[in-house]
Amino acid sequence: MAASNAQIVEELRWKKFPLLNDGFVCLVDCMGDDEALVQAARVSYGDGTRPVSDNRTLIRYLLRHRHTTPFEMAEIKFLVRVPMDTWRQWIRHRTASVNEYSTRYSLAIDSMVTTPPDEWRTQATTNRQGSGDYLPAEQGAALTQSEAKFQQSARDLYQSRIDAGIAREQARKDLPLCTYTEAYWKIDLHNLLHFLMLRMESHAQLEIRQYATVMGEEIVSKLFPLTWEAFKDYIMDSIQLTRLDSQVIQRIAATGKSPVTVDEFLALGDPSWQGLQRCRERDECLEKLQFLGLVEK
Amino acid sequence: MAASNAQIVEELRWKKFPLLNDGFVCLVDCMGDDEALVQAARVSYGDGTRPVSDNRTLIRYLLRHRHTTPFEMAEIKFLVRVPMDTWRQWIRHRTASVNEYSTRYSLAIDSMVTTPPDEWRTQATTNRQGSGDYLPAEQGAALTQSEAKFQQSARDLYQSRIDAGIAREQARKDLPLCTYTEAYWKIDLHNLLHFLMLRMESHAQLEIRQYATVMGEEIVSKLFPLTWEAFKDYIMDSIQLTRLDSQVIQRIAATGKSPVTVDEFLALGDPSWQGLQRCRERDECLEKLQFLGLVEK
Amino acid sequence: MAASNAQIVEELRWKKFPLLNDGFVCLVDCMGDDEALVQAARVSYGDGTRPVSDNRTLIRYLLRHRHTTPFEMAEIKFLVRVPMDTWRQWIRHRTASVNEYSTRYSLAIDSMVTTPPDEWRTQATTNRQGSGDYLPAEQGAALTQSEAKFQQSARDLYQSRIDAGIAREQARKDLPLCTYTEAYWKIDLHNLLHFLMLRMESHAQLEIRQYATVMGEEIVSKLFPLTWEAFKDYIMDSIQLTRLDSQVIQRIAATGKSPVTVDEFLALGDPSWQGLQRCRERDECLEKLQFLGLVEK
Amino acid sequence: MAASNAQIVEELRWKKFPLLNDGFVCLVDCMGDDEALVQAARVSYGDGTRPVSDNRTLIRYLLRHRHTTPFEMAEIKFLVRVPMDTWRQWIRHRTASVNEYSTRYSLAIDSMVTTPPDEWRTQATTNRQGSGDYLPAEQGAALTQSEAKFQQSARDLYQSRIDAGIAREQARKDLPLCTYTEAYWKIDLHNLLHFLMLRMESHAQLEIRQYATVMGEEIVSKLFPLTWEAFKDYIMDSIQLTRLDSQVIQRIAATGKSPVTVDEFLALGDPSWQGLQRCRERDECLEKLQFLGLVEK
Repeated sequence: MAASNAQIVEELRWKKFPLLNDGFVCLVDCMGDDEALVQAARVSYGDGTRPVSDNRTLIRYLLRHRHTTPFEMAEIKFLVRVPMDTWRQWIRHRTASVNEYSTRYSLAIDSMVTTPPDEWRTQATTNRQGSGDYLPAEQGAALTQSEAKFQQSARDLYQSRIDAGIAREQARKDLPLCTYTEAYWKIDLHNLLHFLMLRMESHAQLEIRQYATVMGEEIVSKLFPLTWEAFKDYIMDSIQLTRLDSQVIQRIAATGKSPVTVDEFLALGDPSWQGLQRCRERDECLEKLQFLGLVEK
Repeated sequence: MAASNAQIVEELRWKKFPLLNDGFVCLVDCMGDDEALVQAARVSYGDGTRPVSDNRTLIRYLLRHRHTTPFEMAEIKFLVRVPMDTWRQWIRHRTASVNEYSTRYSLAIDSMVTTPPDEWRTQATTNRQGSGDYLPAEQGAALTQSEAKFQQSARDLYQSRIDAGIAREQARKDLPLCTYTEAYWKIDLHNLLHFLMLRMESHAQLEIRQYATVMGEEIVSKLFPLTWEAFKDYIMDSIQLTRLDSQVIQRIAATGKSPVTVDEFLALGDPSWQGLQRCRERDECLEKLQFLGLVEK
Repeated sequence: MAASNAQIVEELRWKKFPLLNDGFVCLVDCMGDDEALVQAARVSYGDGTRPVSDNRTLIRYLLRHRHTTPFEMAEIKFLVRVPMDTWRQWIRHRTASVNEYSTRYSLAIDSMVTTPPDEWRTQATTNRQGSGDYLPAEQGAALTQSEAKFQQSARDLYQSRIDAGIAREQARKDLPLCTYTEAYWKIDLHNLLHFLMLRMESHAQLEIRQYATVMGEEIVSKLFPLTWEAFKDYIMDSIQLTRLDSQVIQRIAATGKSPVTVDEFLALGDPSWQGLQRCRERDECLEKLQFLGLVEK
Repeated sequence: MAASNAQIVEELRWKKFPLLNDGFVCLVDCMGDDEALVQAARVSYGDGTRPVSDNRTLIRYLLRHRHTTPFEMAEIKFLVRVPMDTWRQWIRHRTASVNEYSTRYSLAIDSMVTTPPDEWRTQATTNRQGSGDYLPAEQGAALTQSEAKFQQSARDLYQSRIDAGIAREQARKDLPLCTYTEAYWKIDLHNLLHFLMLRMESHAQLEIRQYATVMGEEIVSKLFPLTWEAFKDYIMDSIQLTRLDSQVIQRIAATGKSPVTVDEFLALGDPSWQGLQRCRERDECLEKLQFLGLVEK
């Protein structure tokens, strides 16, 4: 078992999964596997207790009940190449260890994120922080062109400062945010799953979502298959019902009818929602109940 | 607003809420209030955006969507007197700051948790880590008596070592775990809510549950009423539906009947549960669906 | 005492200390004062012990002996406006709470760091990560001009994308690193002192050094005067002698002569340094001993 | 290199280093070695820079200058058996991951720390929190006897509660603090060195000092020999000179005489020390300067 994981680590180590136009993520090292989590969890049981459940059942139990400490017992180290604006989001996760490429010591990496004509995203109208549809490629072409021109001028400016003998730490000040950086990033499995939960989620920005998805689907899923399965079942694909949501379901269930119509849902909604024209909480509840099949779409 | 919270702090400061036979918890200081959370959250919006929603709606939105960072912007400091075995659980929450009474510097506090005859709890049969019913008081009386005698002998032993000139750090080694300790404990609101979620929960040990409940209901609820309301609605009284749970509900909803019987539930359960005599995950699903009124009790 | 600190907080709150061309730092809130640290430290002593030392002596003792936990008992909240490249360094301090201005939600702040002709710094020759002398203003003038032109084109590009309906989260990708951002930043005093130690230090980049210095000298020194004095005496103005340094001093002291010449120092240096043409550790030792007056300059 | 470390891990894994009467510490797993720290540190340099220094020199440089992040890139997992009163100190280090034996789930480990007649320590007179000399064995014999008797009665009490059907979580409440517990303890190398610095130090309590010393000398020194050497030279065997200490040395050096007498030291001391009968800071300074050979003993 430990052997087989060692083999997977060897297969994945330094294998660069490409992302964006010039980014990547790769595994550098890994401590532990599903078995090691179980080993740590079982210290609680001591000698002489009844036979413990099998690994899969135990891992699923632990994750379902938010017994998070055993998942801290595994550790994963990545090397990533990421644009700095994505890194600004990434670094907000404080429970990781980081060694980042220094543009004080070294010349900035000569690479920036470029945007193909068909990948310019419009501002979402329903979500103030997100993206909507792609712009038609013909409209995007001009943006791609001005991006290329601007990025060239940015690099020229940087180089001209370096040539003039300006300190690297100051010369870099006008580099575009999408300039690539590189970092070793090491984190325990519990905190990595938390990162993936937030960054694989549909509201995360596309760029970091792509990184998170690759890390999860291509690396974590192979190193910790039982944990990954449980993570999908209990975290990623889970739904949180609030007290208000539960009470709406109870009222719907009491009608004896299933599903109910949207109008019926509105009538059975929380008293505090009545009469409101816009109510985000009600919208969210409706969406959950439609997904569950309890309200007609 | 800040003024009104300052007043609440003044009213609560140093007010000792008694717990167990000789423990307490009291507020020492507090930075921030509901308004301060909103203030920090709104830095995201900058100038010139559309009018922001009111405080209650925003706080509820933040908590519902796990936008946790604004809740780190408030900070609360307590002074607590707790038995050391409860403290062993408490201190596992690593995101707090702690100054604890030192039994290396000072004589150990001369007070231990005593158990009245009617408060001895039997081992739970369904839950390997919990308590079941109370023992009848007549049976408990003997236990209470032997506890008192033992605790006296423990204190005598400690005192005899001190009298013999033994170092406090060594003399204390045989003090019972239920000896009281005291500590300043400071934590931000986000992490405090996490602590309360875990420690007010029914599976937490009774002693720490009593502390957590007093801290939440008597102190946090008064300092942060909007946050507390949202915490109750979205965290404490929420239900997590796993992918498997959701699919069972979808199948139940599709029957057009509500509620279904337990037998129907079993037939509509996850394929992986079929044929299992015992299945904890299925039991948990059943319990949730009965609570929601979707399955008959 | 608590009253007097409350007054200082009121005086400083929201008072913007200007930094760079358009940055600032200001105090938002503060929990605790020197007295509160002492209060927490004294929980160790319990009742009935001998009279404790006065506050200044105790605070100095605590800091000198790295008893760090009482310094976590105070908490400070700032609002800062900082260029993003400085923020990249700032955010590496993981023990703080942060709410940052979001350029996904809102238009990027329309302000960037500009460099006057006489503030362009050359690359340090002795230190791969630092700055050396200023470039003559006449040479700097051209750089300042190209900076202004570039920054205008960067803002134009950003605005043109916004006008084309591009999502803010994508439109921002080519903003220069020196674009200003704003954040609430909250941290306990212990971790703040650690931040200040690293960022007020001469090897820190000039920009963050300016922020750290203002935070320390203008705000922390006023809120925690006893702690600040001790911090200067024991941390900022301290010298660390390694085992090798100490042994060199012992050998110098044994000569009975003081100070010794550089040649004598070299002869008395660590055996592992002998014969090395370049030896950074020896250079550092020499510098310390010259500062101490034990070796001639 | 990685191979050789893998071999050391295999040799050490599960090898129990005995401590106290029934405790132990053993290595469970390790990610990284000296080389891996260097690898992470060098990400700062990027491609195309001048040849980097060798590993030993770089590691020493990093540690000397408190570049701590590369040392977070290695991770070590231990299994330890420790008395609960030692664990109370241990667990104060918050940057580790922990899975501890649960006395809610399982019967408490039937083992406590026993004290041989010649290992009873007297209260230190110069240090309120420490131990002084050992008590003569003949005096210790009675203490050892009463300890044994008490521990038997404690275990009997626990067992009688268990036999009466009391919940384990409540039955344990009067267990002596020196009852053994077990835990998986995982931490990165930077934070482990910090733990070792504090707990190998002469003021740490004897019991935890013994654990720390074994972990450092028997395990860390073998897994990370270059780091360990630097840690000894720059941390464990270093001396911190305060601003006041440095100024005293400058005044001593200026006398041209070396060493000076204690009286001369007193005359050259900090102005703020003059006239004080007791002055801890002056005592500490004197001790350092005598160690350095600058003041006569």
